[in-house]
Amino acid sequence: MSAYDYDLFVIGGGSGGVRAGRVAASLGKRVAVAEEHRFGGTCVIRGCVPKKLFVYASQFHEHFEDAAGYGWTLGTPSFDWQALIAAKDKEIARLEGLYRRGLESNQAELIDSRAELVDAHTVRIVATGKTVTAERIVIATGGAPNPHAALPGHELCISSNEAFDLAALPRSILIAGGGYIAVEFANVFHGLGVEVTLIYRGKEILSRFDHDLRQGLHKAMVDKGIRILLSDVIENVARGEGEGGGLIATTKNGETLAVDTVMLALGRDPNTRGLGLEAAGVALDERGAIIVDAYSRTNVPSIWALGDVTNRVQLTPVAIHEAMCFIATEYRGQPTAPDHDLIATAVFSQPEIGTVGLSEEDAAKRHAEIEVYRAEFRPMKATLSGRAEKMLMKLIVDAASRKVLGAHVLGHDAGEMVQLLGISLKAGATKDDFDRTMAVHPTAAEEFVTMYQPSYRIRNGERV
Amino acid sequence: MSAYDYDLFVIGGGSGGVRAGRVAASLGKRVAVAEEHRFGGTCVIRGCVPKKLFVYASQFHEHFEDAAGYGWTLGTPSFDWQALIAAKDKEIARLEGLYRRGLESNQAELIDSRAELVDAHTVRIVATGKTVTAERIVIATGGAPNPHAALPGHELCISSNEAFDLAALPRSILIAGGGYIAVEFANVFHGLGVEVTLIYRGKEILSRFDHDLRQGLHKAMVDKGIRILLSDVIENVARGEGEGGGLIATTKNGETLAVDTVMLALGRDPNTRGLGLEAAGVALDERGAIIVDAYSRTNVPSIWALGDVTNRVQLTPVAIHEAMCFIATEYRGQPTAPDHDLIATAVFSQPEIGTVGLSEEDAAKRHAEIEVYRAEFRPMKATLSGRAEKMLMKLIVDAASRKVLGAHVLGHDAGEMVQLLGISLKAGATKDDFDRTMAVHPTAAEEFVTMYQPSYRIRNGERV
Repeated sequence: MSAYDYDLFVIGGGSGGVRAGRVAASLGKRVAVAEEHRFGGTCVIRGCVPKKLFVYASQFHEHFEDAAGYGWTLGTPSFDWQALIAAKDKEIARLEGLYRRGLESNQAELIDSRAELVDAHTVRIVATGKTVTAERIVIATGGAPNPHAALPGHELCISSNEAFDLAALPRSILIAGGGYIAVEFANVFHGLGVEVTLIYRGKEILSRFDHDLRQGLHKAMVDKGIRILLSDVIENVARGEGEGGGLIATTKNGETLAVDTVMLALGRDPNTRGLGLEAAGVALDERGAIIVDAYSRTNVPSIWALGDVTNRVQLTPVAIHEAMCFIATEYRGQPTAPDHDLIATAVFSQPEIGTVGLSEEDAAKRHAEIEVYRAEFRPMKATLSGRAEKMLMKLIVDAASRKVLGAHVLGHDAGEMVQLLGISLKAGATKDDFDRTMAVHPTAAEEFVTMYQPSYRIRNGERV
Repeated sequence: MSAYDYDLFVIGGGSGGVRAGRVAASLGKRVAVAEEHRFGGTCVIRGCVPKKLFVYASQFHEHFEDAAGYGWTLGTPSFDWQALIAAKDKEIARLEGLYRRGLESNQAELIDSRAELVDAHTVRIVATGKTVTAERIVIATGGAPNPHAALPGHELCISSNEAFDLAALPRSILIAGGGYIAVEFANVFHGLGVEVTLIYRGKEILSRFDHDLRQGLHKAMVDKGIRILLSDVIENVARGEGEGGGLIATTKNGETLAVDTVMLALGRDPNTRGLGLEAAGVALDERGAIIVDAYSRTNVPSIWALGDVTNRVQLTPVAIHEAMCFIATEYRGQPTAPDHDLIATAVFSQPEIGTVGLSEEDAAKRHAEIEVYRAEFRPMKATLSGRAEKMLMKLIVDAASRKVLGAHVLGHDAGEMVQLLGISLKAGATKDDFDRTMAVHPTAAEEFVTMYQPSYRIRNGERV
């Protein structure tokens, strides 16, 4: 019998923590998982899942509009925000139950409390004041929206956390940020009938994405009625004078916007405060993220960290992958470092983005010569619906090796598509493999196997 | 200057013929393409394109139903069949124009007439009676629905050709056949509010597909209200007695069905009658299809055949691929045989099917040991819509080589998914490549990269 109360103590019941705890428990380890809020973490409670449900809700108005071109007539649709929130809450409660039962059925102990480190092997359960010991400790406390405390009036603003539970749907919203969270919420609120303005300090939304995706989505958002302010930031937020209870936001470039709601989506910070990390001697980087080695181990040999709290790649599947690698390394005798290369990702904007591998810009910097295959076309469904919408697909190919370096999609089902494109890239597929693949007709994805000639080449950084 | 009037004469203005003619003309060849009906062929005029537009039209009622769970209220939708037909006809006319202009802009001659072979280098233009000569002749006349002339009352029935232009939407339809055309129309008509019965002589719809896809789709169709009669055939069709102008169909198993319309979807025959093939000495097989070699050449050295008329694989992209191979072989000095291996295909049923590579059954016959990875789950959208619908995903893996032999999907976007899965299979991806790919969350396709353990194995034909 071990001298410790537990083999593994996990702080944080999100995607990474629950996976590590559940699988360790299934292997017969004595495991506890402590969560101060709700099991499921950002993904289930206030991230991926409710976000995607909101996206579905916000897409229906397009279905209603598109139907007319196909011979359908319907009355004027109306939308009930509270009904959506209630349905979403019910589903999240169901998922939270699944997370809890997944742990319970493997005999892991669930602790509904904040937990803080006391030393390298000791944790204090805040709700009871009790301290317990563990041979290994995993910190998987995730992250939280940056509150931007330097902004006068920031306390009047909401973050994505609150956006999931607004008492009423605002008539107008100003969203600050140019990352995927800002962009997704801008599209969701627009789809639900809200007047949306997006403000971002950069020159174009979604920095680090391929420029065609950035510009294409920007144009599509503007075309459908979302206002986008670039190279500008909110300088002040104050309560409006009128009875509407609205807010007045002023910007560096001199705009004054009267809106019901201001949402800040200015990045996420690792949840490392007040965790006792100093007491245990766990080192943080300058952004407050826990520093880990290739195997997710901190500088304290008995403590690991997984997921957003390490600020490596802030994505649910990455946290789960890191958890599985921790299990393989520590409990299966198969040292396995997480593989963060070629991660496909989606932005559930409308139109959607799917992207994997290198952008055109990055590929051009790293390779002597690249071929860019680019197709922009109207999807078949839009021919009868009359929707002014284009799909964009791009392949970035290394001219020397013929390897596909990057694949990018803007349009319907881009997330589904890029998941499967990701397999090809991970398998090292060449452009010739794409060319040898027969088209499936009529689909949108068939463009990826029918772009036979490069649209252009970039040699030593010059387009030729 | 050649002794012939043309370098290339193409009989048939469908996908294969137009591609061969257009590309040959773009290479400076003197080309004519003769088409007796409308340019675009089966795909554009009475196949893939109008079919997919009908599928879109028939999907809206599900969107309307699903919206309620997401907080939307709308009035009772109504559907106008004539409006859909008019919109479809307009789009097809536009596409036909694109096909014509693609030929014209490359200086190919369009001949709006039936054309028949006189000898190995001579063609008669039926509309004018003129004969012309060509160095090479391509026959790309496609196929047509089998009229099932042996069925008493077959002349009262429609085929898919007429289904695209019915004067009115029937209240009820009996569809004979178990192939993808029968299945797709059954779902389209059901989605548009028609009472649908499908009758098929086989034991299960979609023979040769993976059994899970066949059974899964069957169940989904029955669950939504489509009646499916298996191991039965129509023996007689007669006009009904009443004023409704309906039909009475009787079946071998003794069913009597009173329906507005009977549609026969019992396979397609190659269009080879009255083409002068005998005069030119072109050999046919017992099904009436033109026999060709690996390079699509007939037994007459100056005559080639492409697409459905050869009854190899009756798919638009295959005909186009065969045309491109003909061009490479004959006009670019690059002998290229069409590659008919690992063709991904979709059935645009609702739910949709996407399939590539071997079914579980075929893989088990050909490989000593296979692993079957199988996931059946409720898609996220269905959680709030309440729709009783499951997605099915399957991977068939060769245990010895780890190669993925087959990938199968039943559910939304299956066609898009299988197009991209097809690239991975064509690139020879292994199950390890799938496992190494990070999930994109939340998507449906992520199931394909998160099925870590086989559901079961089949060794020497035995499930273990």
